[in-house]
Amino acid sequence: MPEPDLVTRRKAALGPTYQNFYDQPLHLVRGEGLKLWDADGREYLDCYNNVVSVGHCHPHVVQALSQQAATLNTHTRYLHENVIELGEMLIEKLPDEMEVCVFSCSGSEANDLAVQIARHITGQQGVVVTEASYHGTSDLTRRLSTDSYPRQDRPDWLAVVEPPNLYRGPFARDDAQAAQKYLELAVVELDAMEKRGVKPAALMIDLVWDSNGPLIAPVEYVRGLCAEIRRRGGLVIVDEVQSGYCRSGQDWWGCNNYGVTPDILTCGKPMGGGHPLALMSTRRDIANRYAKTFHYFNTFGGNPVSAAVGKAVIAVIDNENLLQNVDSSGTYLHSKLTELAQKHALIGDVQGCGLFWGLDMVSDPISKTPLSKSKMRRLGSLIVEQGVVTGTSGRYGQVLKLRPPLPFTKANADTAIAAIDKALQQMQEYRA
Amino acid sequence: MPEPDLVTRRKAALGPTYQNFYDQPLHLVRGEGLKLWDADGREYLDCYNNVVSVGHCHPHVVQALSQQAATLNTHTRYLHENVIELGEMLIEKLPDEMEVCVFSCSGSEANDLAVQIARHITGQQGVVVTEASYHGTSDLTRRLSTDSYPRQDRPDWLAVVEPPNLYRGPFARDDAQAAQKYLELAVVELDAMEKRGVKPAALMIDLVWDSNGPLIAPVEYVRGLCAEIRRRGGLVIVDEVQSGYCRSGQDWWGCNNYGVTPDILTCGKPMGGGHPLALMSTRRDIANRYAKTFHYFNTFGGNPVSAAVGKAVIAVIDNENLLQNVDSSGTYLHSKLTELAQKHALIGDVQGCGLFWGLDMVSDPISKTPLSKSKMRRLGSLIVEQGVVTGTSGRYGQVLKLRPPLPFTKANADTAIAAIDKALQQMQEYRA
Repeated sequence: MPEPDLVTRRKAALGPTYQNFYDQPLHLVRGEGLKLWDADGREYLDCYNNVVSVGHCHPHVVQALSQQAATLNTHTRYLHENVIELGEMLIEKLPDEMEVCVFSCSGSEANDLAVQIARHITGQQGVVVTEASYHGTSDLTRRLSTDSYPRQDRPDWLAVVEPPNLYRGPFARDDAQAAQKYLELAVVELDAMEKRGVKPAALMIDLVWDSNGPLIAPVEYVRGLCAEIRRRGGLVIVDEVQSGYCRSGQDWWGCNNYGVTPDILTCGKPMGGGHPLALMSTRRDIANRYAKTFHYFNTFGGNPVSAAVGKAVIAVIDNENLLQNVDSSGTYLHSKLTELAQKHALIGDVQGCGLFWGLDMVSDPISKTPLSKSKMRRLGSLIVEQGVVTGTSGRYGQVLKLRPPLPFTKANADTAIAAIDKALQQMQEYRA
Repeated sequence: MPEPDLVTRRKAALGPTYQNFYDQPLHLVRGEGLKLWDADGREYLDCYNNVVSVGHCHPHVVQALSQQAATLNTHTRYLHENVIELGEMLIEKLPDEMEVCVFSCSGSEANDLAVQIARHITGQQGVVVTEASYHGTSDLTRRLSTDSYPRQDRPDWLAVVEPPNLYRGPFARDDAQAAQKYLELAVVELDAMEKRGVKPAALMIDLVWDSNGPLIAPVEYVRGLCAEIRRRGGLVIVDEVQSGYCRSGQDWWGCNNYGVTPDILTCGKPMGGGHPLALMSTRRDIANRYAKTFHYFNTFGGNPVSAAVGKAVIAVIDNENLLQNVDSSGTYLHSKLTELAQKHALIGDVQGCGLFWGLDMVSDPISKTPLSKSKMRRLGSLIVEQGVVTGTSGRYGQVLKLRPPLPFTKANADTAIAAIDKALQQMQEYRA
């Protein structure tokens, strides 16, 4: 499938930093809606990519991008309607308390700015994140990404709390009790940080716990954790890069599903349908206080072309009723995944919400031993051989991740299920 | 010129963070080559914007963007020719020692990664920057931007050296002596940092000293500073966001004009003609050592659309001989600015290179008292009333900055000179 020449050239020009999904890297050349094609003309169903939130190469998004790029692209030091209109459209969608929008190019930039603001506003330095979290690649956000660097390098201003995993975490499937237990664990970490002389500036939380799951947490846990942070003078930053933009279903934002009001809400990947666009939104009083000392100007952030794309993505979500589609297709996909789990002992648990589902794969359902990384790699390759693109997640790389573009249909769900079913049968035969 | 309604709506949706150039903000709606038009149909010559390096809405760039956006936009976890070809094209242009390219969305991201790498490779934490420097907006790069936050907040791992300003710096226009004197000042700061127990991981240097100038430094100073950093175990990071991509003339990169070989070279703004695209390039041995511990994956960085745009910008620079144009138009602009300085006592100095020129404005040529910010603001407004867009820079906001798109012609230079001449006459009349 991949040209060895291309792999060699890539290694030469880009170095070891760049890694491919799959042992036989996919060489994709075209995309449309839920479909992708490789260089040999093979068609794939995309069950993984959330960046192209409204589908690959959506004509309305492509047109908005092309038209504005041919007209004007400057920056926000000149007046332009697009960035204002994008801000207004988002404020309509955002939780009421989020009153102002600041645009950047990536979730990393948005999260980095959010923590800078929280530290300035609170005068406190600590940040609370989840074990095996991911929040970005900048120096600051990499430190918030406990999945990205050696444990011994964690700074003393970081408190790391256990993810509320109700399948393989320390506390089992008793929601009311689990909420309390996970909260107690978090308080231990918060107390430990304060003993090191550091008070929390913020909790940064991904309300779908992407790199751990996806997970669904007890509502009381999430609300309790936010209350605990605020009690200690910190702000609540919800990182909606994964959970937002209708991905979790029911609402545009994951935080609304938990009844949590953030002080700062960030988003990135799905906002631009592939174009680099990200958001830091907050209350007006917070923005005003920060602006008294600091200017923030992001050269590319909110430029007329990026803003045109951002507007187009929102328009497509509204025009095509994609939030409703997430609910209906997501419910269907969930039911089919649950059926599949009955059939295959390798599926330990079905987790998720909206159009974000994970199969926690186990080599043994009693001990819940995670399926090995090499077997997970083989499973992904077998599924892609069936023409379906999926991903992996989870603290042990043991979660098969399904997170398709939002226009995913029930027919697409059937195709995906059939491919995974076949791949799991092949895994069993291989084992036998 | 600007609609009050738009200004109000902008303030409401985007908060106080967003600021406009000019008291009467420009409301631009269209751009083409060197020209911009506002909502009233007024035409402007763009003498400021370096982001649209090959001119506004260049048809080749727009076509590359539109075509790839309509075909496929994913990320670098799948194989795609574009990012490989962009890497190969850049390696052709880059200093020989820069062997691998890593792409991101902004200069901030590129510089942030560069320092992360330098710290990991050297095991040292200090960073050396210039007084009143600007290197980005992330938590780390903001601290490297000594123009962006209160002096008392400078971290102990920062050594701040005096810019080699040969007009208004502490040492006057004796190049050989000045080089030595500025170098001695830098050594004092380096020693002071080491006394605080911090050794330098890197020097980060903008070789046109944008926020101070632009400035031209004695070659011996630049080489001496780099040698001093290396003697102390640090790496040399050249931030070519401002000086690179043919801007400085003579060569693609500012560092080549000084005969300096960087360990890491970063770039951003001009690479994508307005599209968010940035580069961190380095030696293969450095990239390999970093990759042993850390993965770096930037969702949008080097995606097929961004890479298509990056390739198109390089192709335009080559096809239209823009490096040669920078030299010929730049030389002409320089001579005309020098003539203008003879005529107006407000112009204290003409500084710069290539197509990056600054007029250091003074209320008194003997004392070199910087023209006040309010007068600089008035000057900028008077020039824009003549249909020419310029900017300001300098430690006291006293530098009138001319940094047009690279296809700037001699006729454009004449237009710009006439507008500045007229505005300066109006300033004099106003004073009289």
